[in-house]
Amino acid sequence: MDRAALARIVGADHVVVDPERRAAATVDWTGRVRGATPALVRPGSTAEVSAVLAHCHAEGLAVVPQGGNTGLVAGAVPQHGELVLDLRRLDHLGPVDPLARQVTVGAGVTLAALHAHAAAHGLRYAVDFGARDEATVGGSVATNAGGVHVLRWGTTRRQLAGIEAVLADGRVVSHLAGLDKDNTGYDLAGLLCGSEGTLAVVTAARVRLVPDEPEVAVGLVGVSSVADAVVVVAHLRELVPGLSAAELVLADGLDLVCRTFDRRPPLSAAWPAVVLVEARGREPQAEVLADALDAMAVGETAVAVEPARRAELWSYREDHTLAINTLGPPHKLDVTLPLPALAEFAAAVPDVVREVAPDAEVWLFGHLGDGNLHVNVTGVASDDEVVDDVVLRLVAARGGSISAEHGIGSLKRRWLHLSRSDVEIDAFRAIKQALDPRSVLNPNVLLPTAPGRPAPA
Amino acid sequence: MDRAALARIVGADHVVVDPERRAAATVDWTGRVRGATPALVRPGSTAEVSAVLAHCHAEGLAVVPQGGNTGLVAGAVPQHGELVLDLRRLDHLGPVDPLARQVTVGAGVTLAALHAHAAAHGLRYAVDFGARDEATVGGSVATNAGGVHVLRWGTTRRQLAGIEAVLADGRVVSHLAGLDKDNTGYDLAGLLCGSEGTLAVVTAARVRLVPDEPEVAVGLVGVSSVADAVVVVAHLRELVPGLSAAELVLADGLDLVCRTFDRRPPLSAAWPAVVLVEARGREPQAEVLADALDAMAVGETAVAVEPARRAELWSYREDHTLAINTLGPPHKLDVTLPLPALAEFAAAVPDVVREVAPDAEVWLFGHLGDGNLHVNVTGVASDDEVVDDVVLRLVAARGGSISAEHGIGSLKRRWLHLSRSDVEIDAFRAIKQALDPRSVLNPNVLLPTAPGRPAPA
Repeated sequence: MDRAALARIVGADHVVVDPERRAAATVDWTGRVRGATPALVRPGSTAEVSAVLAHCHAEGLAVVPQGGNTGLVAGAVPQHGELVLDLRRLDHLGPVDPLARQVTVGAGVTLAALHAHAAAHGLRYAVDFGARDEATVGGSVATNAGGVHVLRWGTTRRQLAGIEAVLADGRVVSHLAGLDKDNTGYDLAGLLCGSEGTLAVVTAARVRLVPDEPEVAVGLVGVSSVADAVVVVAHLRELVPGLSAAELVLADGLDLVCRTFDRRPPLSAAWPAVVLVEARGREPQAEVLADALDAMAVGETAVAVEPARRAELWSYREDHTLAINTLGPPHKLDVTLPLPALAEFAAAVPDVVREVAPDAEVWLFGHLGDGNLHVNVTGVASDDEVVDDVVLRLVAARGGSISAEHGIGSLKRRWLHLSRSDVEIDAFRAIKQALDPRSVLNPNVLLPTAPGRPAPA
Repeated sequence: MDRAALARIVGADHVVVDPERRAAATVDWTGRVRGATPALVRPGSTAEVSAVLAHCHAEGLAVVPQGGNTGLVAGAVPQHGELVLDLRRLDHLGPVDPLARQVTVGAGVTLAALHAHAAAHGLRYAVDFGARDEATVGGSVATNAGGVHVLRWGTTRRQLAGIEAVLADGRVVSHLAGLDKDNTGYDLAGLLCGSEGTLAVVTAARVRLVPDEPEVAVGLVGVSSVADAVVVVAHLRELVPGLSAAELVLADGLDLVCRTFDRRPPLSAAWPAVVLVEARGREPQAEVLADALDAMAVGETAVAVEPARRAELWSYREDHTLAINTLGPPHKLDVTLPLPALAEFAAAVPDVVREVAPDAEVWLFGHLGDGNLHVNVTGVASDDEVVDDVVLRLVAARGGSISAEHGIGSLKRRWLHLSRSDVEIDAFRAIKQALDPRSVLNPNVLLPTAPGRPAPA
């Protein structure tokens, strides 16, 4: 690494070699994966990103782009000594266009900042998830982040109306006009979205906003089984047009959250499964939600409209991640099942795990409306991949996807073949080779190590 | 062309050399562009498509994939002696999955057949446009077709939940599970969608369906200007949650439709511009629509709920295409303008055209909700591109896109640089080269002829 050359581009203050700051950028959010980097380079503009990449490309220096470093598949952690390209200084918030309902923001803007910016104009950015205070727009575009509202508004890709990105050799592609219909060539924005920093570095995104519907209701429903939870959500999708989230937690996870954060359980009985639902609209939603639940004659329910109480109900679901992390670095497997196979999978997975790891604990929760389950496993060594292997094979056998929303990163690439054929993976490789022939951009994530080519040490 | 080899793959009956049938496949819908082909090859299965492409790839034989041949940029017409790969025999309709609201259909299924299939299950395919009886799913995926409902449900790309396609060398990629969240690699489906047959041949698609809302209302609103029409639509977007179409026609186009098809005008006064709006929902829509129009105090309105009357109102808009075609092969320019620039563009374009073609007539209509105008020009020789040039330059100068929904095809590729930078076009070329290194697939569309490399004769 030519520190002086990089300092000439971004300024000496923004080539960070301080060991503590480097350490924070080289461990993943769970603490499971640790890497090392010679420096964090912190460009302050697209032009600086361009110059940094042109330099790295010329020198053959591998780069790991990083935003909030909240990813859960170690896709932004330099595990092979790569340079970290920290994009958080690209935090420009463009003017909201109320007519088009769009805004252009820098890659370093946090989701929380984007939400606040949109709210100030009576609009809302539809993608939201627990890590909103640190996760950045650039990272969420690079990973096609999902979150809690996918069942109504789709993943990040659907919000993208345009993109600015820097190619591996430093050249900039910019297409930010945000025209809703624009069939002028290949969908570069959609291709870069979800490419996990392997094809280009996202520097800005033009995103769609949705009307900030004033009426919101959140409900919890205790049910007797995961199978019942699936049925409840299917009915709610028919009965509640404004349904904006449908989440699943189980009794043991809820209990862990309550114990960890010293909270009272949200329902009076200990239901085997609890569904959290949210509805948003122009008209009051509590009655719609309550009526729909009554019509189904399900178990105990609680419905909240007041913001603080809504946040409290949400916290039982969202705090799963923090509570589980207190048990030690978990193995986090984020998978999608076809809805008809979901309940049987949920029942089978603890046994399958315990067969190979008798001391393991399995925690299940997730975005039920999308068939997306988060399978967290604690009590297993960080580098023991047997548990990951049996769970992901079970997912594939049930017709599911080995990554719903977290991506492949470095942690799942050896299993990519469970969800993608050799021909598809070959096509991915061809695209990667076309856009990053020197393998400068995040070379150790997403694509499996080529046959006969070991991963770099 | 090795006719015997192709006949061994698809059967002798399906290698069509009959001059009449070839002629129909070598002229575009408008009659403006004529080409030639040695044969139409009509595979009956994905395996046959695979074998045909493997053969063509080995022989270096260029192929133009074709569905209903309703495209308007000559993207499916063999202008350089390419083989035509007619995909209409791939007309399989898979079972509708009511829980996931999805269905897998063959590339050769017409939009009309897909609509009927979905309707039989109380669901609807959101993409719809005038050519529905001939246009195929494969063609609409290849071109990312838009149509009349984009403002509510998006273009074809947003409906795609999975794709099956054959790569240039005959290998098949298939990803049809239709999982809503599936972050396992690059978005191949989204990349192929809109690639106009240049990256792979789409053989099947898994598409999302929407609930078939029972209540539909269609309204016509006479307004004093295009500027007023833009304002009306912006307000309707706020006031009518179920708004599913917002189309624009002008007085001269309406008059042409009425004269051509011997119809009475739909409104009593001759308004300079007429907006057609449609709303769909679970609750009756006529009152919502009427109330919204009343609230704006716009000009004369007509609202229809009864299906035959709704179809009649729609016909004033949809029959523009047929009516204009009776005047001779039009130049069809399909563009998007940012909404604030649309009215000024509409006012300017006739003058700009007449400056270079004094005898030309300009017809404007389109999907106002998306900023998508169809600029049709008659009275100009088919091969005279001066008109196209001035119109597309005006679009680019106003920040618009030179293709909203038709694509680039062969007709617009020399202007692609007006909407895309050299770096973007280079990236497109790199992707094309990666997936089709021998340039077998539709080699003469979308990408401009490389600098210094003339188009094949």
